[in-house]
Parts: sequence; structure tokens; C-alpha cells
Amino acid sequence: MKILINERGKKFLAGSEDLHTDQGYIKNEEIQSSSPGDMLETHIGHKFRVLDANINDYIELMDRRCSIILPKDLGVMASFTGLGNGHQVVEAGTGAGAATIFLSNIVGEKGHVYSYEIREDFAAVAEKNIREFGLENVTIKCADVVSGINEKNVDLIFLDLPKPWDVIENAKIALKFGGFLVAYTPYVDQVKLLTKILKKRGFSDIKSIECILRELEVKPKGIRPKTRMMGHTGYLTFGRKI
Amino acid sequence: MKILINERGKKFLAGSEDLHTDQGYIKNEEIQSSSPGDMLETHIGHKFRVLDANINDYIELMDRRCSIILPKDLGVMASFTGLGNGHQVVEAGTGAGAATIFLSNIVGEKGHVYSYEIREDFAAVAEKNIREFGLENVTIKCADVVSGINEKNVDLIFLDLPKPWDVIENAKIALKFGGFLVAYTPYVDQVKLLTKILKKRGFSDIKSIECILRELEVKPKGIRPKTRMMGHTGYLTFGRKI
Amino acid sequence: MKILINERGKKFLAGSEDLHTDQGYIKNEEIQSSSPGDMLETHIGHKFRVLDANINDYIELMDRRCSIILPKDLGVMASFTGLGNGHQVVEAGTGAGAATIFLSNIVGEKGHVYSYEIREDFAAVAEKNIREFGLENVTIKCADVVSGINEKNVDLIFLDLPKPWDVIENAKIALKFGGFLVAYTPYVDQVKLLTKILKKRGFSDIKSIECILRELEVKPKGIRPKTRMMGHTGYLTFGRKI
Amino acid sequence: MKILINERGKKFLAGSEDLHTDQGYIKNEEIQSSSPGDMLETHIGHKFRVLDANINDYIELMDRRCSIILPKDLGVMASFTGLGNGHQVVEAGTGAGAATIFLSNIVGEKGHVYSYEIREDFAAVAEKNIREFGLENVTIKCADVVSGINEKNVDLIFLDLPKPWDVIENAKIALKFGGFLVAYTPYVDQVKLLTKILKKRGFSDIKSIECILRELEVKPKGIRPKTRMMGHTGYLTFGRKI
Repeated sequence: MKILINERGKKFLAGSEDLHTDQGYIKNEEIQSSSPGDMLETHIGHKFRVLDANINDYIELMDRRCSIILPKDLGVMASFTGLGNGHQVVEAGTGAGAATIFLSNIVGEKGHVYSYEIREDFAAVAEKNIREFGLENVTIKCADVVSGINEKNVDLIFLDLPKPWDVIENAKIALKFGGFLVAYTPYVDQVKLLTKILKKRGFSDIKSIECILRELEVKPKGIRPKTRMMGHTGYLTFGRKI
Repeated sequence: MKILINERGKKFLAGSEDLHTDQGYIKNEEIQSSSPGDMLETHIGHKFRVLDANINDYIELMDRRCSIILPKDLGVMASFTGLGNGHQVVEAGTGAGAATIFLSNIVGEKGHVYSYEIREDFAAVAEKNIREFGLENVTIKCADVVSGINEKNVDLIFLDLPKPWDVIENAKIALKFGGFLVAYTPYVDQVKLLTKILKKRGFSDIKSIECILRELEVKPKGIRPKTRMMGHTGYLTFGRKI
Repeated sequence: MKILINERGKKFLAGSEDLHTDQGYIKNEEIQSSSPGDMLETHIGHKFRVLDANINDYIELMDRRCSIILPKDLGVMASFTGLGNGHQVVEAGTGAGAATIFLSNIVGEKGHVYSYEIREDFAAVAEKNIREFGLENVTIKCADVVSGINEKNVDLIFLDLPKPWDVIENAKIALKFGGFLVAYTPYVDQVKLLTKILKKRGFSDIKSIECILRELEVKPKGIRPKTRMMGHTGYLTFGRKI
Repeated sequence: MKILINERGKKFLAGSEDLHTDQGYIKNEEIQSSSPGDMLETHIGHKFRVLDANINDYIELMDRRCSIILPKDLGVMASFTGLGNGHQVVEAGTGAGAATIFLSNIVGEKGHVYSYEIREDFAAVAEKNIREFGLENVTIKCADVVSGINEKNVDLIFLDLPKPWDVIENAKIALKFGGFLVAYTPYVDQVKLLTKILKKRGFSDIKSIECILRELEVKPKGIRPKTRMMGHTGYLTFGRKI
């Protein structure tokens, strides 16, 4: 999927029609015949770089009906579990599909992401987002993950749900030995209950972390952490089936 | 590659000989014929779970001659750049190969990691670690990355070097449009100079962040952040070729 | 100085005239004759609690022409230097006088705060704020602290200036043995230069810290750090004359 | 109270006998007749600076039988409550008296600190520490603060107890209007229960914070946050009587 970026860094998805912007338009056929790296011009001479959209470009521009989990938390989840090419992943809930796309991008063609979403409207949006981006290793399931997980021998189960503890028992069965369950929850209270249930169900290596991201402001007059900062998103709680 | 984990969570790499531990030994042929998930017993009855080693198990146990970049930083690097299956990656320096293994695990068979290491001893250790773990999509190059990057159309260049600014010009050429350069540096001074050079060389979306990880202690008497915490590892500075 | 607080927590300074609010008015004579703890009513029946203003109430309501240093940073400055009753303090620059009031409140009648401010408009505002609050142990000096510090045997010199290093030499002379210099600076670059000069001038116990404040959100549905958070204010750099 | 500091920064309390150190001894009469700022020499020629001990010097050297609350937390407590000269403070428990000394130093001769400690051994140590340092505005009470607070019209009640909620009702009565209750607790669970009880008892401006201190390492080769860092001490929960 192509995107176009103007000189101010604003991004546009290349669709099936002419691209109209506040800096002029570019004809669709011109976009279609372009290659990543090409520089196109609008009819009034503004330049747009053509790129292959990476997942973050796409997630930024796609239809999002609900809040999404941030890259910092997804990255830590992936690196702590050793997520990689060929892995089988179960996710719930799908939401708009941002985490789904992230997971799909890593596990690749040999892997697969099975994503459970109880709400039909979210499942439909996610399905659309995933198809539009061309991902073929994803199955969106409009179903309640609490009722059961059909997959077996799973490498990673990622839960972004209000009550992840309801899924622990099924998750234990679905996971392969050595596989990980990860739950993302904003509240300390959720971490507490989740940890208790993970222990009860015999999970190992239980740990809860939060990832705090701090950005530096690098300007000619000096360098300092930025004033604006996200104080909290959520905790990541890990358990491993051993 | 198999590992064995005892009841106290201690991990052992399964090599080509009998496994001797302070809880007794297990014969090599027994390990060889086991499957992930099997429970083996030492000659004095202690139980060990057999698992397929994931990358973090292996990195923990492999030969490490130098300090390695932590999973938190690798995860954020991967998620911020949209690293995925099939990507072409250049890395320098290799060190013991921990980041190399992380990158290799994500880019998979269709991707490739070209890792430059100027020191012969480090390159040899990394080569051994990577072969032992069975990774086939990695090329360790014992060469100075400052002298040149042979690869083209690269998705990600990851620099864990004291002077990453020396590589910026070559990196710009090697990257595909839309590709990312990421440098990991402990000092603010490095971030400052690096940012200046990235701007000068026309990189876009320049940003420097640090990822602070905080772990919760969840015990019956209460929940609280842990007293022990890593105060700082390094900054991740990003630039994109647009 | 009295303040009145309504049921929604909004605070009002009691001046020399009737208090008019969007919840009705209270006659000045009624306010004058009230005691802290009394509950007064506006002419339309809204209740206002009368309190003795503490310094934070007053700083919140006083005339502020410039950004002020936050309580978190003032508190750490005071506790790290052992600031207490009877201490002699030199401050520069005064700004609107928020730090001045904080310092004055701690050193008390036996102590004194000499506050240098180069800008006449700031000095005038600070003078007004300090007199209005009734502090008698403060001397505002509209002068450039770089030109000289007249005080001797000082316990603490607190610098909130762009170039605190210009004051180090004079500060060393003004301080008593065992006294502290503290500089508040937003940029890492300032910390670097300041540290260098402090070392050169023979200061001991040089240290630079930042104080990051995180607030918890405690609600019926759970407890979590707040999303909103100040990412950075400034660094506090300490040096002691020994 | 005098202290002596050697060239390596090590501090020694000046007692009533000769000072013996690993760098030689100094006669007591010489110490007694010295003034702050004087440089004394041991019999083998090592130099020691004589200083008036500030509270942090003393707390560092005094008899401490239990863990003490850190300056960062004391400082934030003082600045958020506007603690100052002349204030009446109630504290519980005393422990070794570190917070007591901090509070005493700020409230001065016109103020007073009433400190409740249920354990006789702690109360005795604190009494000794406070008398030795020469503080006259402190009353150590070996009593259970839950049984009652005798003081009235108090500016600040500071609780460093496992169950601060047991004291809330009595604290409300003892506080003046506008006065603050502050509790220091390590666990999130304590914050939750405490907040609930503070609300129930009609406290205003309830807020819970933690103060995270980060130190910079400033060296010739660069500047960076230190690797070592305290991950957590405790939360400060505030309530105001309005």
C-alpha cells in the first residue's frame, strides 16, 4: 500500500481515486504508476514523496473507532516474549486492529494471528483495515474469547480486555509449552487480580511492568526532556506456560 | 534448540552431551529423543521441563563477552520502525549478537540481517552464537561500517556504536525511501551531535526517546513498584529517509 | 491573610472590599470580623469557608507575570540542603516571588531572604506580593546578582537564572562553610557547564537531580497513575562550600 | 553541633572525646575551641574541615535503628503543605526521628513537633537523637496515636504508619481549618483504603503522589542519567481540612 508525504510531513493514503489535498491534486493514474521513492507533484507544484506504507503509517491513517495500544507497549510485549517469524498468536479483543497489524507484521506468512472481538462493529472495522492493508495471515473472529479458544499450540496470547482473568484457564490450554500470555490493563487492581489467577493456574515467570516513554527535546538552545509526556497507558502482565 | 528448565526456574541449554546439574544428570539420548513439553527426570528424580528455546532463553544462556542492549530498548526500536517479516536490516556493531538474534527472529526467512562488527573476537563469538541457535538469515561481517555499507534498499539500520554520526552518510544511501536509521547511545551529548548530523543529512521524523521500565511487586501484603530499578540504559534516536 | 473557599474548592483572597463572586457577594465587614474556620454565606446563601491563607493558597492567587518554579522542586531543594528556621538565604532572580515566599516561610523571623532581581517590573510585582502577604524577613533587591552579592555567611544561595555559572565565584565568597548553592535549570547543557564551573571553583558534594512527580488516580473503578503528567521542569544542581 | 569532614568527604560527629580516625587523631580540646570553617589537622597531618552539622549531616551519622523516610519525600511533603516557621505539627510514628528533625528544623522555636511512637525502644533512640542535636521544639510521646491526639489547632499531621486510616478521625479533630494530613505509605493498596476513608471523613483536596528522583551523571565523556536509581519509596497522600 502506498502513501504520499508532503513537505510538511503530512501523510495521505493512496486510494483508488485522484488525491485531493490543500496543496493541490495528483491524478490517480500517476500515483498508480509511481514507485516508492518517486517524487510526484500536485497540479500547483507541491511535491509529495511516494512510499510503501509501513504499519505505523497505516495505523495512523486507518479507520480507528476506539483507543489503540501504543507502539511502546506493543514493542515491549513483543521483545519480552521473543515474538518472531512463524509464531501462532491469539489476540482478544481486536478493537480497530492496531495490535493485530503489529502482530501480523512480525509473525509473517508462516505465522498467523487469530483475533477475537466480541463487538460486531469493531470486528467489521478491523476486518476492513486488515484487508485494505493486504494482510493475509490474520483471522478476525467475531466471538467471545471467554467462551473458548479453538487454537492449539499457540506461542503468544495477547489480551487487551477489561477482565483478562476470565480467559486464563482457556489460555493455558491453548498455549504451547514455553508460550506466553500477556495482558494489557490500565489499573493496578486488574494487575493484582490477574496475578493471583495466573499463579493459581500454574503460570510461571509472572511479571508486571509498565513502559514509560520519555522524549528529548533537542534544540539549538539546549537539550532537555519534553514537557509533554504521557503519564500512564497500561501495565503489561506476563505469564509463561512451563 | 532445546532448553531444560528445573522446578526452580533455572534454565539449561541442551547440548550434545549428558546434562549434569546440581540436581543430578540426564542422559543426552533421552534429551535428544524428547519433545517440547516433555518432563524429564534426573537420575535422582528431579524434574526438568523440555522447551524449544525462545530467543530470550537463548540470549540469557549464550556466550556474552560484552554488555547487551536490553529487550525493552529492542522492542521499542522494532515497534517504532514497524520492523517486520521480510525486512532487510543492517546492524553495527554486532557485539555478542543479542540484537542480531532479536532482529533475525522478526525479519524471518524472507528478510536478512547484515551485521557489521569491527572486532574479530566479538564477530567470532556472535557467529558462533548465531550458528548454534540455527539462524540462517544473518550475515556477520567483520568490517568497519564507517568504511561503507554494501547493502541497498535497506528497511532498518540499527547502530549501537560510540560514534553513530560517522555512519549517517552511508546509511542514507543504503536505506530505502521510508526506511529508518536508529542509534542507541547512552549519553545526552551523543544524542545532540547525532541529531545535528541527521538534520544536516536530510533525515525526517528525527526523534530521541528513552524507555524507562518499571516493574510492579505483587505480593499478598500489597502491590507497589519495585525498589530495584534500572535508572538508565540508553537513548534511541530515530531518523527516517523521506 | 484570609482566603475564602467555596463548596467547589475555588479560592478567593479577602481584600479590603466586599467579595463579589458568581455565587453572590459577602460584605467586607463580615469577612474582617470572621475567624479562620468560620463559614460565611453570600447574600444568596452559598457557603464560603474562611481560612488563613497558607503560602500555596496565596501563590496560586497572587499576581504572577512569569512562570514559577513548582513546589516539588522547591521542596527537594529545601530538604536536600537542610534549609530551616533562622537561615540566611540569597536568591536570584526573584521573578514574581513564589520561591521567595517559600524560602521566607521556612527561614522565619530569625532568618532572612535577600532576593536579587534585575528586571524592575518583576521586582515591583514581587515586592507587592511579599508585602501583601505580610512577610517581613525578605529584602527584594533590584540589582544584577552577577555584579556582586553583599551578604556574608549565607546558608543557601538559590539561583533560578539562565546563566548561574556567572554567579559561582561570588556565591562561594558569600556562603558560609557548609552552605549550599543550588541552581535550577531546564537544560542538560546548563547542568554540564555549571558542574564544570562548580568543580573548578572548589565546590564539594556536586550533584544534579530531577524530581519527577507522578500522581495516582484513585477512583471506584480502580487505581492507576494519571494520564496527564509533567514530563520535565528543570534540574536542581547542588554544590556545597567545604 | 560540630562535624568534621576529611578530604575524601567522610564525616565525623564531634563528641566529647578525642576524635580517632584511620587518618590519625585530633584532640577534643582542639575541636572544642575551633569555629565552623576552621581546618584542623590530625597528628599525622591529615586535614579536617570543621562545620556546623546541618540536619542531613546529623541524620546520616546518628543512631538509626529503622529505615528512614528520604529527603525527597520529606521535601515534597513540606512544600505541598506550605509547612513553615511557627507551625504546630503532629507526627506518628517517630522511628529514629529523621522526619522529626526535618520538621523541627523548619517550624523553629515558635513551632512545635509532637511525635507519637508506640515502641519504647524507638522512642528512646529518637529522644536521644533529638536531645543530642539540641532541638528544643520537639516532644516525643511514647504512646499509640490511634488512642488519641491531644494537640489542637494543628497545621500538619504527618503519618508514617502501616494503617494511617485508623488515625483519620482523630486527625480531623486535631487539625486546624486549612491544616493538612499527609500519610506516607509504600503500597498502592494503602493509598486506596486511605483515600476512601479520607473522603468519608470529609477531607478536601485529596491527592496521592509519588516523587521519583533521578540523578544525572556528569563526566568528561558525557552526561546521562545514572544507572543506579531508587525505583520506589512510598506514596504521599494528602488531605486538607476545609
